[in-house]
Amino acid sequence: MSPAPASARALTVDSLNPKVLALADHFGGAIARRAQRMQEMLEKDPGSYPFNEIIYCNLSNPHSLGQQPNKFFHEVLALCDYPHLLHWSVTNSIFSSDAIARAREILDLIPGRATGGYSHCQGTEGLRNTIAVGIASRDGFPCYAEDIFLTDGAAPPVHMVMQLLIRGEKDGILCPVPSQFLYTSSMVLCGATLVPYYLDESGGWSVSISDLKKHLDAGRSEGITVRGLVVVNPGNPTGQVLVGENQCEIVEFCRSENLVLIADEVYQENVYTDEKKFNSFKKIARSMGYGEGDISLISFHSVSNGYYGECGRRGGYMEVTGFNSEVRKQVYKVASLSACSNISGQILMSLAMNPPMVGDESYTFYQEERGRIILLLSQCAEAMVQTFNSFEGMTCSKAEGAMFVFPSIRLTKKAIAAAEAMNTKPDVFYALRLLESTGIVVLPGSVFGQVPGTWHFRCTILQPEEKVQLFIYRFKAFHEAFMGEFHD
Amino acid sequence: MSPAPASARALTVDSLNPKVLALADHFGGAIARRAQRMQEMLEKDPGSYPFNEIIYCNLSNPHSLGQQPNKFFHEVLALCDYPHLLHWSVTNSIFSSDAIARAREILDLIPGRATGGYSHCQGTEGLRNTIAVGIASRDGFPCYAEDIFLTDGAAPPVHMVMQLLIRGEKDGILCPVPSQFLYTSSMVLCGATLVPYYLDESGGWSVSISDLKKHLDAGRSEGITVRGLVVVNPGNPTGQVLVGENQCEIVEFCRSENLVLIADEVYQENVYTDEKKFNSFKKIARSMGYGEGDISLISFHSVSNGYYGECGRRGGYMEVTGFNSEVRKQVYKVASLSACSNISGQILMSLAMNPPMVGDESYTFYQEERGRIILLLSQCAEAMVQTFNSFEGMTCSKAEGAMFVFPSIRLTKKAIAAAEAMNTKPDVFYALRLLESTGIVVLPGSVFGQVPGTWHFRCTILQPEEKVQLFIYRFKAFHEAFMGEFHD
Repeated sequence: MSPAPASARALTVDSLNPKVLALADHFGGAIARRAQRMQEMLEKDPGSYPFNEIIYCNLSNPHSLGQQPNKFFHEVLALCDYPHLLHWSVTNSIFSSDAIARAREILDLIPGRATGGYSHCQGTEGLRNTIAVGIASRDGFPCYAEDIFLTDGAAPPVHMVMQLLIRGEKDGILCPVPSQFLYTSSMVLCGATLVPYYLDESGGWSVSISDLKKHLDAGRSEGITVRGLVVVNPGNPTGQVLVGENQCEIVEFCRSENLVLIADEVYQENVYTDEKKFNSFKKIARSMGYGEGDISLISFHSVSNGYYGECGRRGGYMEVTGFNSEVRKQVYKVASLSACSNISGQILMSLAMNPPMVGDESYTFYQEERGRIILLLSQCAEAMVQTFNSFEGMTCSKAEGAMFVFPSIRLTKKAIAAAEAMNTKPDVFYALRLLESTGIVVLPGSVFGQVPGTWHFRCTILQPEEKVQLFIYRFKAFHEAFMGEFHD
Repeated sequence: MSPAPASARALTVDSLNPKVLALADHFGGAIARRAQRMQEMLEKDPGSYPFNEIIYCNLSNPHSLGQQPNKFFHEVLALCDYPHLLHWSVTNSIFSSDAIARAREILDLIPGRATGGYSHCQGTEGLRNTIAVGIASRDGFPCYAEDIFLTDGAAPPVHMVMQLLIRGEKDGILCPVPSQFLYTSSMVLCGATLVPYYLDESGGWSVSISDLKKHLDAGRSEGITVRGLVVVNPGNPTGQVLVGENQCEIVEFCRSENLVLIADEVYQENVYTDEKKFNSFKKIARSMGYGEGDISLISFHSVSNGYYGECGRRGGYMEVTGFNSEVRKQVYKVASLSACSNISGQILMSLAMNPPMVGDESYTFYQEERGRIILLLSQCAEAMVQTFNSFEGMTCSKAEGAMFVFPSIRLTKKAIAAAEAMNTKPDVFYALRLLESTGIVVLPGSVFGQVPGTWHFRCTILQPEEKVQLFIYRFKAFHEAFMGEFHD
């Protein structure tokens, strides 16, 4: 670190934008900072804790937990990065034939084969065409390249949408509680009013339309113009997959209440139950007979998720439908402020939406990779759900999708009092004690929001197979000791 | 395009954020849209214009104009994308040894060798260390990885800085006129007041401290709190390289007036004159004896520029010094909103700051590539400057750096009247006529701002060697005809 200045002259923290100051410090929060210090301690002195490693269940970052990248995707990326490889015959012996063919196709789609050039602001047109084909094939309804904006992951387009819709604090967005902090942070930064609605935990974290209506009316009665509704499906942090009927209700609600439906569908490939299936909100709306003129709909997707989990690649798209041409021009202007998204991420997004097909050399291996990862995720989820439901005072909904479980803990009065005595929220207190005792890092429910008086934590289902039993063993011992210590 | 909706219900353009509506439409502006339509016409019917191609001199996008990517950089990227290549002996015969060694080093710097994982919010620590070494070696003063934020090009950090500094319309930023629209757009979106200062064209686009002081005082007298000063060096659109004495004056001005010095140094490797040398503002400040406590300084760099011009890779960094720890926490919070920048861009930025050294296998070829490109750019610049200075009514400062020339045209009263009759700005009128007659696309000075009553255009110096004479021939014929037609 650079030497701490005696006094940095020009800037004091209280002279900064108050909207930035109001942002919660989630990534660098108490739990993450403590875990980092413990990790450093363990590296220096391996005996400093009764465990030898920190178990990160706070971040949805599969590759950093040992998940191997997809071979086909990375072959294509390497060939596009260094197209000279395509000129050498030896390449045929070390790359799969369909990766070579795909790289050639992609290079042909990029004007001048210039992977180092800026693309169109919305992303390379040819890659958007490929993605539109993938979306159309997923939904059974048409999709147009002009509706696709390729983005550096899902965060930039969320900020774009908020910038477009929010004029000031009298504008609000209906946002689920609990929800990922990307939405709440983006709203704070734009000065929007968060109009919360509560996911129904007893109904498997479904969306209750009467609850939506209640909160919409409450917001409106306070003079808030509610511009849109955020739905996260499959859910983060809650791991539910919405049923089609519930989705139809949500579409109808947005249409009749004149709200932009902002659908976070980044976990669309992470579904772990045979009983449910991912349906995009666009497919639902079109199936109901609603077209461009009936509902304004934005969908986000990203390569950070799915079974491939390519978070660091920052690829993503936003599909924008039901916006008139004047509004679309404004979307385009905001998108053009960052020139374009990164080309590797654009390529990867096109691969994710159009993976190897039957007959392609990579197909079988690709399916094996995919099947293995989805199986591991679902086994990890099932083991965790079963474990948490066996704990005293804990209940945990099934992880139907995404990468998380979000169990509820009934904390005792004594535990709550102990937390208060330390000036800590009860769920943060629980998570900190868990970390100190086991090295397991989870995020407290208060980071995501929860019904007042209830306490939760979010735990990713990304533990490698060989570590799941250790995780359960340590967590169980901790929880029993904790409940013993704080028995009312 | 999706069918135009009869009426998209939820959203009308006048219900959007007025700050978005206020953004100028530069990328999709009249000239670019016209050029695109002409390109489409030419593709359909090659005989539709008296030329057979559009000559793009509006965008600084070297690879799209045929510049070949750097071999060493792309070898390393491919190896990092698909590290399996490192296991095969054949790789030694198709990749250079230092690219292989560098890829191994980089993979070792990335936790878990996971190029698909999220990095630290500021970027992978090891890559930031490498970049800090590069900066320290460039400046001869220490640089710390903790001060570096790796970014998706230079646009996101500019928006971050504006978000941090700007509380509302009573906050202002001193910004050069002419200047790149990234800064003006970002200010519009944050609701900042632009406090303009005028670069001194007769002094080779240098910064006049008395002009700075005059505009600062004028802003303050209108109740504006001026938070910072933007300096672009080498200049965009103006192509100047500031001399050390001028830089010292600017540093002293920011220090004494308590302004954050926001230094856009993205063209630091593009200098075409032996008489001048790029000096970072940090080097200048440190050379003057000013340390962390004396001045708050932000520097931007990006892989979109330099001789490599890897625009589509979206790699960049921001170096932040002279910020106290409380302020830095806020910078970190804003950076964490987008999780991290893309890893390929991070890797490329580390390569650009630490290219092959003497003794490395790639060194000679790297130097040849670099030398050839810089030579072509400087030859193109010189030919253009000479040509424009030979035109009636045109003067053009030397292109000392960056990728542009910015000639001034003295338009006749008749030309101005003709433009006004078409409800067009005179410089836009000139650029449109140029486009229609020659297929050459330049950006009118009004996009960047200019002293009222003066007219300019920005022209990139990226034309391939074989096209420079054609460019000059066509431009000359047009200009003579134009001046003939509109002679007063």
